[in-house]
Amino acid sequence: MKWSWLLRYVGLAALVPALLLVSSAGRSADERLVDRARKVFQPLPERVPSPENPLTPEKVALGRLLFFEPRVSVDGTVSCSRCHQPGLYSTDALPRPIGALHRANPRNAPVIFNAALQIAEHWRGDRESVEDQATQALVGPASFGNPSYEAAMARLAAIPGYRELFARAFPGPTDPVTPENWGKAIGAYERTLVTPSPFDRYLEGDEGALTAEAQAGLRAFMQLGCAGCHNGAGVGGGMFQKFGLVEDYWKETGSPTPDKGRFDVTHADADLYVFKVPILRNVARTPPYFHDGSVATLPEAVRIMAKVQLGQTLTDGQVRELVAFLDSLTGPLPESFATAVALPPAGFRP
Amino acid sequence: MKWSWLLRYVGLAALVPALLLVSSAGRSADERLVDRARKVFQPLPERVPSPENPLTPEKVALGRLLFFEPRVSVDGTVSCSRCHQPGLYSTDALPRPIGALHRANPRNAPVIFNAALQIAEHWRGDRESVEDQATQALVGPASFGNPSYEAAMARLAAIPGYRELFARAFPGPTDPVTPENWGKAIGAYERTLVTPSPFDRYLEGDEGALTAEAQAGLRAFMQLGCAGCHNGAGVGGGMFQKFGLVEDYWKETGSPTPDKGRFDVTHADADLYVFKVPILRNVARTPPYFHDGSVATLPEAVRIMAKVQLGQTLTDGQVRELVAFLDSLTGPLPESFATAVALPPAGFRP
Repeated sequence: MKWSWLLRYVGLAALVPALLLVSSAGRSADERLVDRARKVFQPLPERVPSPENPLTPEKVALGRLLFFEPRVSVDGTVSCSRCHQPGLYSTDALPRPIGALHRANPRNAPVIFNAALQIAEHWRGDRESVEDQATQALVGPASFGNPSYEAAMARLAAIPGYRELFARAFPGPTDPVTPENWGKAIGAYERTLVTPSPFDRYLEGDEGALTAEAQAGLRAFMQLGCAGCHNGAGVGGGMFQKFGLVEDYWKETGSPTPDKGRFDVTHADADLYVFKVPILRNVARTPPYFHDGSVATLPEAVRIMAKVQLGQTLTDGQVRELVAFLDSLTGPLPESFATAVALPPAGFRP
Repeated sequence: MKWSWLLRYVGLAALVPALLLVSSAGRSADERLVDRARKVFQPLPERVPSPENPLTPEKVALGRLLFFEPRVSVDGTVSCSRCHQPGLYSTDALPRPIGALHRANPRNAPVIFNAALQIAEHWRGDRESVEDQATQALVGPASFGNPSYEAAMARLAAIPGYRELFARAFPGPTDPVTPENWGKAIGAYERTLVTPSPFDRYLEGDEGALTAEAQAGLRAFMQLGCAGCHNGAGVGGGMFQKFGLVEDYWKETGSPTPDKGRFDVTHADADLYVFKVPILRNVARTPPYFHDGSVATLPEAVRIMAKVQLGQTLTDGQVRELVAFLDSLTGPLPESFATAVALPPAGFRP
């Protein structure tokens, strides 16, 4: 109606430059979008280096074996890959993982991919690094369930072949089969598990890598304020934040028991309901959502985040666009994670 | 000493033809070995066809996904791959697998590779085929643990994407998401998991594919009588046999509770302590050994088999040679088993 009115009064000849102006404004808006995005996000690095744990091929190769090794757990059923499965994008699809001796873990299994980018590991940030996480998992009652580090190392040393591989990965005069080196090897491997996606190609200048809907979602992601916390190369993972800034999260997630988050670690009032902001890389592949896996689908998770963090009620269109943007964060499974290597043969020792 | 004596009396000129004769006799003995072996064993086929379950690419691809799918189990922790792990050559290294709800299975996890070659599945042969095994696992209390097939199918149907894949694999007017089709898809996939090894190359005419020690082991394997049961393409899997033909097996294995084997299935006296003869393909990769995983190492398992089945006490040299032959039955991990594909994203529904 408006266009036909315009056409009638202005005429076709005058309209052409006006249309070009709109189109050009659209393009420059897109350019501004990618430029704005580059100030907030970065493409993934090829791997995540660590000054404390230099990545050597021997260490990475050993860590890759150990990641899939179940015989070091107390009942022989838990490897890192039990909760971080290749087919499920390094998660297990459970609200809360079940570990050794069928014990339930308190929180949803975080993704391994790109995890080394984060300020800390675990939902409450109570693991310093991927190395620290891997080491402590050996004695976590609901993860590997070993009664002590000594017990874990005895299981490891009983598998022929590992001692030699540890010696090569950690040369030196001291016994290399230690919980710290277990953590360093697995951590080194995890530091190679990065998952570049269409969003990285977009940030690197290929604007066609994102659909128009995904670009609209990216714009909304920044305008609404999501990117205030979910930013950087991980699209999250860089800070701690209260879950439920605007209203109590459990009213929307239906979580039966509110988790006090980082408060239970630091006992500081300011940390009540505070969690590490999760990285959103591959988020479309890793339902269920939130620290307790209380929400089944990504659209629902997006809607709840807008509500409880930003006080916004999203339209269906906004949710669709945001999900399209989040879809652009899905990369292929890293080859060294998707491809199994044979472990040294030996039976589990009960 | 003898040689120098011979040399002195016969002279070098006469010795040359004599040496050639010895060498030629050696070669012809080897030829006889491979010929004899070909009467007892066959190279692996490329896949194991089934008249009841024709192998289509759609079915095999679906079965590959389902094999690694944990969300169909009662607690979301058990996929086929929980007990048949890629890194452990389709076993789990446990004496007896732990399945859903941490329930212990009664017997050691059999290998999946080449399993479709067998007369029946499971240690007692109480699963007709790989298809039957996969279907029944859905409701096995210690495997997937579902209370009913309906419950299992409801879990499967709740994962978006599978209905479409089932429809493509099983075209027709009826609902394709059935326990039978679950079994057929997984069975079709398993029928592609064959693991050709140096022994197949040997049988096909490349005599250098087996070391001299492995050839000596092969000769002993046939002469001692092992091949009386462990024969065919699977080097086993073709018949039932009593474990402990000559003496009670548990006296050697140390098994705390004798398992009556097939007797508990058929209740026929002749089936007391009778088990399916396991295939020995990749046996060097799949400790611990026997139906109850009671023996940790392959040399020990070989020694016990000779004792309780054949009444023979092997020398260390014989054990080494037999193990060298068994080593030649190890093939590389099948690519479609070692390479993970992403499963349709959805959280487990408790």
